[in-house]
Amino acid sequence: MTTAVADSLDLAAVRQAVDSTLTRFLSAKAESTDSAELPELIGILSRFVTAGGKRLRPLLCMCGWYAAGGGPEAGVALHAAASLELFHAFALIHDDVMDGSDTRRGHPTAHRALEAVRAGGDGASTEWFGVSGAILLGDLALVWSDELLTGATMSARQHRALRPVLDAMRSEVMLGQYLDLLATGRVTGDLEEAMDVVRYKTAKYTIERPLHVGAVLADGSAADLEACSAYALPVGEAFQLRDDLLGVFGDPRVTGKSDLDDLREGKRTPLVALAVQRADESQLSVLRSLLGRQDLDAEGAAAVRRILEATGARRRVEDMIADRHGQALHALDRAGFPPAVTAALREIARAATKRSS
Amino acid sequence: MTTAVADSLDLAAVRQAVDSTLTRFLSAKAESTDSAELPELIGILSRFVTAGGKRLRPLLCMCGWYAAGGGPEAGVALHAAASLELFHAFALIHDDVMDGSDTRRGHPTAHRALEAVRAGGDGASTEWFGVSGAILLGDLALVWSDELLTGATMSARQHRALRPVLDAMRSEVMLGQYLDLLATGRVTGDLEEAMDVVRYKTAKYTIERPLHVGAVLADGSAADLEACSAYALPVGEAFQLRDDLLGVFGDPRVTGKSDLDDLREGKRTPLVALAVQRADESQLSVLRSLLGRQDLDAEGAAAVRRILEATGARRRVEDMIADRHGQALHALDRAGFPPAVTAALREIARAATKRSS
Repeated sequence: MTTAVADSLDLAAVRQAVDSTLTRFLSAKAESTDSAELPELIGILSRFVTAGGKRLRPLLCMCGWYAAGGGPEAGVALHAAASLELFHAFALIHDDVMDGSDTRRGHPTAHRALEAVRAGGDGASTEWFGVSGAILLGDLALVWSDELLTGATMSARQHRALRPVLDAMRSEVMLGQYLDLLATGRVTGDLEEAMDVVRYKTAKYTIERPLHVGAVLADGSAADLEACSAYALPVGEAFQLRDDLLGVFGDPRVTGKSDLDDLREGKRTPLVALAVQRADESQLSVLRSLLGRQDLDAEGAAAVRRILEATGARRRVEDMIADRHGQALHALDRAGFPPAVTAALREIARAATKRSS
Repeated sequence: MTTAVADSLDLAAVRQAVDSTLTRFLSAKAESTDSAELPELIGILSRFVTAGGKRLRPLLCMCGWYAAGGGPEAGVALHAAASLELFHAFALIHDDVMDGSDTRRGHPTAHRALEAVRAGGDGASTEWFGVSGAILLGDLALVWSDELLTGATMSARQHRALRPVLDAMRSEVMLGQYLDLLATGRVTGDLEEAMDVVRYKTAKYTIERPLHVGAVLADGSAADLEACSAYALPVGEAFQLRDDLLGVFGDPRVTGKSDLDDLREGKRTPLVALAVQRADESQLSVLRSLLGRQDLDAEGAAAVRRILEATGARRRVEDMIADRHGQALHALDRAGFPPAVTAALREIARAATKRSS
């Protein structure tokens, strides 16, 4: 049993199962249309979904399933895992439109890829086509994530238990995104507000809810869900804090995204809030004048990075990550999950907090 | 029985029931959040949804319910009707972002309304906030339309029957939108392609699927669904052809939207395709140079309108509308729906094809 669980929790195996479910689903969509144009659009979604990504949510969904005792029909959990990944594609596609990002996972973002469909127009109409097409493509990924899930064989009990978790997840991620929008471009030292965005956008959406999805499908108890949350929230915060550091200090060749985007966008992260709290007047005026500038160049970015270091903000964020990593491991020790689940969650906590991409 | 059906098919009564369902749902959302910012966002959605609109889809959903024999629990059909309206809000909010429209139903579009939340920024950041916020608000309307529906008390049979209809509807409208995007700005005489967009974007989405949603909830037979389609597709085509005429020749004070937007956008309608087919060389060069120009002024618009008239395109579209109106009435005669349903569908066909807003 423990060996079987361990096999099912192997990241490579989960990735393969999820990717083949998604590929099958999207191929069937492309084949069932009588339009000549839709297969091209679906192809862009298919490449976007399979081009990379950590498959963190699917793996957590499987962990939640086994943490709550699993069951003979792991197929339903795998279907849910694939659906979470398609939902995530929706969130990324729209996020990239809002941020105006050019690359994602080392490939062009969806709105950039769509511009190629409309080659030959003038610049403005090509850009408009890319953005409009990506809004639609994200919408399609969202409704198809639902279709993929409701198409899975599921008992009425599983269906009833799953619905409120999914509803909460979907509202939370959009609330988090909206808080993020409101905050963007306002350089302040409000750490609590910045942490609110982290909690909604990442801790709940990326870690807690995928675990809950798997757990409720396996008929998990309230205590199971609480044990999942006790682990998930600190890991999720640590994951996002690491992401913020990588967005500014990471190597674009490793992360697959620009190390200027977050600074140009003026993303209000805990990292920036801490720097603002600790900055002297001249540092503060540099931060205020450079963060959020679309035309920020390498030299300006280097100046911001020096302040993030000199104020101790970068080091403080590293400490916050380490604290949360410790809390998550402590929660795991008390959870009493099957050994294979504990091992997988321990590895996820390590990878989430120490990763370089 | 016929009187009760007629009461339930009264547009004012359906509107009131749908609006109170939506208002209750959105108020509960606003009250359940512990965020100070989200209620403002939900308020914008609430005002957008209740500010106007024909409530055509909800009424059709109720027609479909009674056409297929109805049942004691009309509440589930009303819930579905309200959900369709919230889904439609999603489609309009994203559509307005893509089209860059300023007004809808005589009020600011969602992305314009959201700009007010961010007053005080510079122009570019305010516009960016409006667009980004509206993408999120549309996403939220989409997932909440689902939540509203799955929250309704529904038998397993109803749930199973409803799912494929909703899945088809959601994919179709997005496919239609995408075909529309692909076509926009290319001034051609391809009537068939223009009619494809009409069929997907409007005939199926606006008329056929809402009828089907109501009908499958009432356990309608395949023959019931076919009878709905035989009426719905011609009415839907006529509805969109009328919409295209109103977009160019309508009175903005009555339609609530600009009479320049469609021309500036270069929307490829059957109206334009017919004009291109029939234009002489000098007319064609005027159409090619003016359609799709963002800076088209009243004088340019008047020149386009003169060509749409002179080529007979406007008259031909009026004929197409009348033909389809006739086909729909013929289909109704053969359908054998209850008298109150037939009367309501007859009135919808009349209003859809002869309206001025």
